[in-house]
Amino acid sequence: MTFQDALLTLQKFWTDRGCMVVQPYNTEVGAGTMNPATILRVLGPEPWRVAYVEPSVRPDDSRYGENPNRLQTHTQFQVILKPDPGNPQELYLESLEALGIDLTAHDVRFVEDNWAQPAIGAWGLGWEVWLDGMEITQFTYFQQVGGQNLDPVAVELTYGMERIMMALQGKTHFKDMAYAPGVSYGEVFAQSEYEMSRYYLDDADVTTNRELFERYTAEAQRLVDARLPVPAHTYVLKSSHAFNVLDARGAISTTERAKAFGTMRRLAREVSRLWVERREELGFPLLSSDLPPIAGRAVMPPSRGAVEEYAAELGGLEDAEPRLLAVEIGVEELPPHVVEQAVEQVRSGLVEGLGASRLSHGAVEVVGTPRRILALVPEVAAHEPDAEVMRKGPKVTAAFDADGRPTKAAEGFARGQKVDVSQLVRAEFDGAEHVAVAVHQPGREVREVVGSVVADVITSLRADKNMRWGDPQLAYSRPIRWVVALWGETVVPVRVSELGSGRTTYVDRRAAGPLVEIENAAVLVPKLEERGIVLDAAARRESVVAQAQSLAGAVDGIVDVEAEADLVDEITNLVEAPRGILGSFEERYLELPEQILTTVMRKHQRYLPVRSAEGRLMPHFITMANGDCDDALVRAGNENVLRARYEDAAFFYDADLKVPLEDLRAGIAKLTFEDRIGSMADRADRIRDVAAALAELVALDTTEGATLSRAGQLAKFDLASQMVVELSSLAGFMAREYALKAGEAPEVASALYEMEQPRAAGDAVPQSRPGALLALADRFDLLMAMFALGAKPTGSSDPFALRRAALGVVAILRSQPTLAALTVTQGLRAAADQLRQQGVDVSDESIRTATDFVTGRFAQQLREEGVPTALAAAVQPLADAPGQAEAALHDIESVRGREGFPRLVEATQRITRLVPQGSSAAYDPAVLREEAERALHQKVTTLPDLSAAALPEWANAAGPVVPELERFFDEVLVMAEEPHLRAARLGLLQTIVERAPRGIDWRALHSALSD
Amino acid sequence: MTFQDALLTLQKFWTDRGCMVVQPYNTEVGAGTMNPATILRVLGPEPWRVAYVEPSVRPDDSRYGENPNRLQTHTQFQVILKPDPGNPQELYLESLEALGIDLTAHDVRFVEDNWAQPAIGAWGLGWEVWLDGMEITQFTYFQQVGGQNLDPVAVELTYGMERIMMALQGKTHFKDMAYAPGVSYGEVFAQSEYEMSRYYLDDADVTTNRELFERYTAEAQRLVDARLPVPAHTYVLKSSHAFNVLDARGAISTTERAKAFGTMRRLAREVSRLWVERREELGFPLLSSDLPPIAGRAVMPPSRGAVEEYAAELGGLEDAEPRLLAVEIGVEELPPHVVEQAVEQVRSGLVEGLGASRLSHGAVEVVGTPRRILALVPEVAAHEPDAEVMRKGPKVTAAFDADGRPTKAAEGFARGQKVDVSQLVRAEFDGAEHVAVAVHQPGREVREVVGSVVADVITSLRADKNMRWGDPQLAYSRPIRWVVALWGETVVPVRVSELGSGRTTYVDRRAAGPLVEIENAAVLVPKLEERGIVLDAAARRESVVAQAQSLAGAVDGIVDVEAEADLVDEITNLVEAPRGILGSFEERYLELPEQILTTVMRKHQRYLPVRSAEGRLMPHFITMANGDCDDALVRAGNENVLRARYEDAAFFYDADLKVPLEDLRAGIAKLTFEDRIGSMADRADRIRDVAAALAELVALDTTEGATLSRAGQLAKFDLASQMVVELSSLAGFMAREYALKAGEAPEVASALYEMEQPRAAGDAVPQSRPGALLALADRFDLLMAMFALGAKPTGSSDPFALRRAALGVVAILRSQPTLAALTVTQGLRAAADQLRQQGVDVSDESIRTATDFVTGRFAQQLREEGVPTALAAAVQPLADAPGQAEAALHDIESVRGREGFPRLVEATQRITRLVPQGSSAAYDPAVLREEAERALHQKVTTLPDLSAAALPEWANAAGPVVPELERFFDEVLVMAEEPHLRAARLGLLQTIVERAPRGIDWRALHSALSD
Repeated sequence: MTFQDALLTLQKFWTDRGCMVVQPYNTEVGAGTMNPATILRVLGPEPWRVAYVEPSVRPDDSRYGENPNRLQTHTQFQVILKPDPGNPQELYLESLEALGIDLTAHDVRFVEDNWAQPAIGAWGLGWEVWLDGMEITQFTYFQQVGGQNLDPVAVELTYGMERIMMALQGKTHFKDMAYAPGVSYGEVFAQSEYEMSRYYLDDADVTTNRELFERYTAEAQRLVDARLPVPAHTYVLKSSHAFNVLDARGAISTTERAKAFGTMRRLAREVSRLWVERREELGFPLLSSDLPPIAGRAVMPPSRGAVEEYAAELGGLEDAEPRLLAVEIGVEELPPHVVEQAVEQVRSGLVEGLGASRLSHGAVEVVGTPRRILALVPEVAAHEPDAEVMRKGPKVTAAFDADGRPTKAAEGFARGQKVDVSQLVRAEFDGAEHVAVAVHQPGREVREVVGSVVADVITSLRADKNMRWGDPQLAYSRPIRWVVALWGETVVPVRVSELGSGRTTYVDRRAAGPLVEIENAAVLVPKLEERGIVLDAAARRESVVAQAQSLAGAVDGIVDVEAEADLVDEITNLVEAPRGILGSFEERYLELPEQILTTVMRKHQRYLPVRSAEGRLMPHFITMANGDCDDALVRAGNENVLRARYEDAAFFYDADLKVPLEDLRAGIAKLTFEDRIGSMADRADRIRDVAAALAELVALDTTEGATLSRAGQLAKFDLASQMVVELSSLAGFMAREYALKAGEAPEVASALYEMEQPRAAGDAVPQSRPGALLALADRFDLLMAMFALGAKPTGSSDPFALRRAALGVVAILRSQPTLAALTVTQGLRAAADQLRQQGVDVSDESIRTATDFVTGRFAQQLREEGVPTALAAAVQPLADAPGQAEAALHDIESVRGREGFPRLVEATQRITRLVPQGSSAAYDPAVLREEAERALHQKVTTLPDLSAAALPEWANAAGPVVPELERFFDEVLVMAEEPHLRAARLGLLQTIVERAPRGIDWRALHSALSD
Repeated sequence: MTFQDALLTLQKFWTDRGCMVVQPYNTEVGAGTMNPATILRVLGPEPWRVAYVEPSVRPDDSRYGENPNRLQTHTQFQVILKPDPGNPQELYLESLEALGIDLTAHDVRFVEDNWAQPAIGAWGLGWEVWLDGMEITQFTYFQQVGGQNLDPVAVELTYGMERIMMALQGKTHFKDMAYAPGVSYGEVFAQSEYEMSRYYLDDADVTTNRELFERYTAEAQRLVDARLPVPAHTYVLKSSHAFNVLDARGAISTTERAKAFGTMRRLAREVSRLWVERREELGFPLLSSDLPPIAGRAVMPPSRGAVEEYAAELGGLEDAEPRLLAVEIGVEELPPHVVEQAVEQVRSGLVEGLGASRLSHGAVEVVGTPRRILALVPEVAAHEPDAEVMRKGPKVTAAFDADGRPTKAAEGFARGQKVDVSQLVRAEFDGAEHVAVAVHQPGREVREVVGSVVADVITSLRADKNMRWGDPQLAYSRPIRWVVALWGETVVPVRVSELGSGRTTYVDRRAAGPLVEIENAAVLVPKLEERGIVLDAAARRESVVAQAQSLAGAVDGIVDVEAEADLVDEITNLVEAPRGILGSFEERYLELPEQILTTVMRKHQRYLPVRSAEGRLMPHFITMANGDCDDALVRAGNENVLRARYEDAAFFYDADLKVPLEDLRAGIAKLTFEDRIGSMADRADRIRDVAAALAELVALDTTEGATLSRAGQLAKFDLASQMVVELSSLAGFMAREYALKAGEAPEVASALYEMEQPRAAGDAVPQSRPGALLALADRFDLLMAMFALGAKPTGSSDPFALRRAALGVVAILRSQPTLAALTVTQGLRAAADQLRQQGVDVSDESIRTATDFVTGRFAQQLREEGVPTALAAAVQPLADAPGQAEAALHDIESVRGREGFPRLVEATQRITRLVPQGSSAAYDPAVLREEAERALHQKVTTLPDLSAAALPEWANAAGPVVPELERFFDEVLVMAEEPHLRAARLGLLQTIVERAPRGIDWRALHSALSD
């Protein structure tokens, strides 16, 4: 099948199913989504079904046609189904068959991939579809576009035609594909790829494209004002393309990006709003159009089915024995992390729901896979027993008068309950005696109870991100498509919105006979297991691990399942019938740094790396297919995908190694960071100098000093490497790699690596002091620069990731005791000095604001770690020095349990309450006259000054003072009338506080210890 | 069949035939041609076959979606076949069948339509294809693109999908077409039509689009300089679109247009040149591609066929009797005016070719249709007789010495001729006796002679515009596809380049069995006539006229074949099997002005109007289909086309009538003419005032004055009417129409009509003086303005049509004796005055240059009319007053034959030779002493001063002076030695000249009369 055949085949496939075909848009678009046939038509209530080809332009992907897999223009085939037809996955799989793909032979998976395009205020949930490990389609349920909620929801399918066809034709370079009989893809497009790449990467005039961007956005705004959404959208597209060109030319700073995105987002919102308004003015014409039903042989369990019939059969089970209840909630592929939550939610929902009924039942057991949550409850009674319930009336005291005759209140209650007063009984409610009416409540049948409980469970299913689909009322992580509910052999009718239960389950979509009738509850699990589905996650994980180890063993390798625990967990919930397949790659790729290889395997492909017994990476990987397939075919497909990725990486790696570090470092001068604060090179210079300034505040040894100096000179050099441009997550890592290869000292390489840490909350922090200082300097510079420019984060927007930077500062200082002396203020001041030397205007006010921002993050971090508010408040005076605060927290933990410590704290805080702030600690012992105070004085004279010491030391030293102090408070009136006496007593107390460690809020600490 | 079905069907049809499919371009294009898949790929030697959909954007066609037939974006289906497959028409017709069109029922015609896009230096020859009178496809053999000759030539088919589908679906508004099942075209596109129309016509920001245009062209130039033709072309497209937007907004002046076109043409040329260079650098990769052969069942006569076999049979006819020769040259549809030329060329070619042979033959008869030229020659001998020829040697005098012995010269000659000296004979050549050798020349066989003659005839066929197609050597008006050449029953082998003769002819392509074997020459004509083909143009014309009259008679009408002679001639050569069909239109359209109705019928549709006996237009028309068809179907189709056109016209007409003339006149202020000389309203104001100024130079009566005044106020108002915007050829005509409807005086209406005359060379000129003055003022203003701006025409460029304006001035002044007094200088001065009042800087030099330009055109006009150079020179002194010059020419004609007039002229010119220019005519008769001079003096004293009179009067008066003057010249020495005598004689002669009519160049006139 040639490339063009594939396009024609898909057009035919989708038109046969009732889609219309439109043309690609006649303005450059980055994706088929941006064609008005998608982005505007998904808005509003009108139905819309369309399929079209869209050559999608991504200037950033320009590679001169040299990269085998990446093109500045690639061909998308785009399908929009609005509303959701109920079986979009099935229709999609059928379309793959139309392309000649034998689904039973391949591994086809729906892997969570949520789509969001903040620049147009749009998002949706869905998957990337994998064919033997290769992403071939983006499958999304659109939820919002242009900031508007979509109702109905539209399903978007975006086929990546080059990838699909390279795979189908078995080609390793896009140029080699057969485009048409006798004509290769390269013959048609290669020259354009080269030339357009030249334009986007090298030759586009920056000034021109900037002006075009301005003109386009202005024109778009004018057209919005003129209420013309169609031409306005066209200009939004043009501005977006101009922006992309500038970006590919490296001409967009972070500020410009944020500003441009803001403009485009606003315009996209206005265009979307306007489109719906205009359609409404036209009376939403397509609402009355005569769209044919979607055709296709795709089968699905009945989503409403015969549930009404089942419901009509209610009754007649009064005498039945308890039976097994089996409930299956069928879903489209849940994201792995949602599976476990779903199991929990269903479990607790059933437990609570059944518990609130009077239905007797056995223990609730729930298991789940990405496609189904299954509950088994043994011994569920056929009926609730009948019950008597008391309805509460007035208190007895109010119901009868002194003569014992019913009052008006009692009569009124009886009347309301439609009984005679004589029928009122007495019953206790909350310890008080009331009149009441006894009411007989008949038990409900099992189907009624369970039907309602399951409906509630389904309705209340929620994930962290929820979506809507074709169902008018439900919302969940992914669509819920069918429900099986059987009590013994009887269907329990469950009705939730448009969903209804039945006895049909749905196994692997690719299977012959994917719909399976379930005769009774007991056979549901066996029938699913028969089809290879491992329902229980733990069992599935075991299977994954066992298969992986066995496959690895076949090449004398192992899989380090502990190190890969997160990945194994993810894989476990990516499949329901795990089928391990061992793949290999060429040994030569092992020359690449391991982190590159494993990053690609884990992050992009979810492959388990295979290692030798000694832990060396081997040229193998294990992928876990879902269900039966042709192992050899699937292996080859996955190997191709990995080869392409490694080929890319090897290309970049080799190219980078040829460039001296100094040249790379010089290269970052071309990377604009933010135009007002210079290039990335300017920033790296400042980082170097800030780190040096901070180093003076802590005592580095000579070696550390030399390391810091050299690493500072090289700071950030790897940002100019092709590998990091390609995989930015490798920043720092590649710095270490390339530095080592270039013969730098291991400590220098390590510091360059560490300076990027921590990458995210909870990530590792630098271990060496040079690394930590560079990491701090990096973050102090970023924070100070942005606050100086007034670019502090708002609630919804933090384009420079300043929150993360602040949290990084705090994490580093908290983790490095040897740097605990450093304060946030010092760091920001040092950064301010460097910025000022580069001509940036940094106000003192902005230093204060930035300090507050960082300490604010610290407080938040403590809260999130579960540190009680009072405890956090106790070290609040140390917030500017998170390292010291951290130490204080540790000290508090270590001493809080000690006998006497709480008393010490209480006594201390009592002093702080009594003694006015700023009081002098000097006093004349001679005026002290009470015994208690003189005894205290005696103790105090032996108390050393521990103001700079840690709490435990003070606890030791001050412990003995406490009894005297308590006695003092008991027996002595501090606020004596004689001024000199009062002064002496206050001085005595203040002396105690001043000899205590600084930086503790004693009152807060007292409150924390009291909780 | 829905709209999208049709697109998919065509894609399938053409891919099945070996075309590849590409996508529409992702930048706005005005036509599929502009997609690089056409415009770049047709360049260079590489093969290319492609088919694609192209939504084509023409901002100027924006109608808010209201016009039923016109859209700012219409859908083209574009096919490129490179090289010409040899049967592109047949393939195309097959594609129509694929769309479900029953070719045997419809009238499908290929009507000459040559394509040229000067803005990209491109042109080609071809047709618009008519389906029942509707243009559905543009069919072009590309000859040049980007200024480069194409080799091989590419065939371009451009289907107009909306038109085709409206016809097939029987819809009268584009919105009503079924686009897809359940979805109308309007539902998909109407909102976009409305909004984009709003943008293009009303809302596009002019400043923005101007800047975009500048930016785009600059970027294109940069990319040309960087040798990147693909992105450069993209920016050429973008600039072209920006230009079109500005044009639709009415923001482009004539100067800007010329400048922009210049820029775009230059860029297009550079891009084209660069593309070929780049492809050459890549080694023209597609030259070695493995394109499959073009499939399809399309039949054609063999173009090379068995001609080599026929040629091998030569010989053996020595004793055969003379036979009939029949030759048919088969072509694709020739333009009507070429048919007659072709017949003539073939006739003369055969006559000359056969005449130069020794083959005896009868009279050559040639007839022709648009698809074949056919020659019959009876009694063509089987063989030329043998002949003796003499080869010339040296003269006898040089061949023999005094002794009669052969000289070395004779011996050398004999040796050269390989004979003995004794074999030399004597023969006369050009009257001199030479030695010679007698050589025997055997006669050639008929097939050899005729084969070579016919080949020469075909090779030398030429039209005014010639093209190349698939043939490597031939060039003609349209492709020559087959040759039948039969001598009796024997095929005459004709080989011309890749064309070869045979015995297969080709009738109507749609017929069952379109290929017909011809057994012998005698049956060729009958067999063609059997198929309804009328070979002889005169017979065909008769058939057209007879059918037309008969059909018109059926509705009691007639066709005024004399008035429609040109149209009848054209129709005669548009078809080869004329089949008249009478169509009708709704009576209500007769309320439209007749000229609108007939313009549409004649110009757009080639329909013959039907009139009543009294000459009134009737609601009928006659179209001449080609060959058998379903009359009812074809009638309905043609009626639909006409209805749509009339509906448009009626819409505009009604809309225009609602607008007061003053408002229309005010509306032309919005039409930019040329930015430096203001709007069309400014220009109309100047025309009004220039006409008034000229009126003061001629005596208008009161009525004329009032007419001029009112018409001047309204001048050009109709340019703002929708009808004229739509059909600009109706300018002036609609002015008269609307003025009459608005109640203006008929004279005013007439003057407004006349001011646009003459429209072209040879066109009618204004009859009334107010009309003539306005027409002159119009042209004087245009000429003066442009010359003032320095925008005079160059050899190749005359964007403001100044030549036509100058010729118009001359034609008007020559035709209006009552305005003969007016000079070009006066007119231009008056125009200059008005321009200066409007602030335009008009130099005196520019007035002179403009005057010279106009008088230069006058001289050229006279030359083209065949006026002898000398005669034209005779009135050259009057060139500034063409009316007077014209009168003088008439006078010369009227008197040149008169007895004595040449003598008078000769004598007069003799005076002008003798008497120095500027001599005084005063003399003292007393000093004259010779009798001859005294006699002459006597005659001269009676000669009245006729310097302001016409020639005939002077001829009468001066005739008697001639004998005396001749005697004077014979007897008197003018240049006497005595100064006073000489002065008197010169004075006497000068007096004669000064009393003669002014403005005649006597010497030139003498020379003219002597020829």
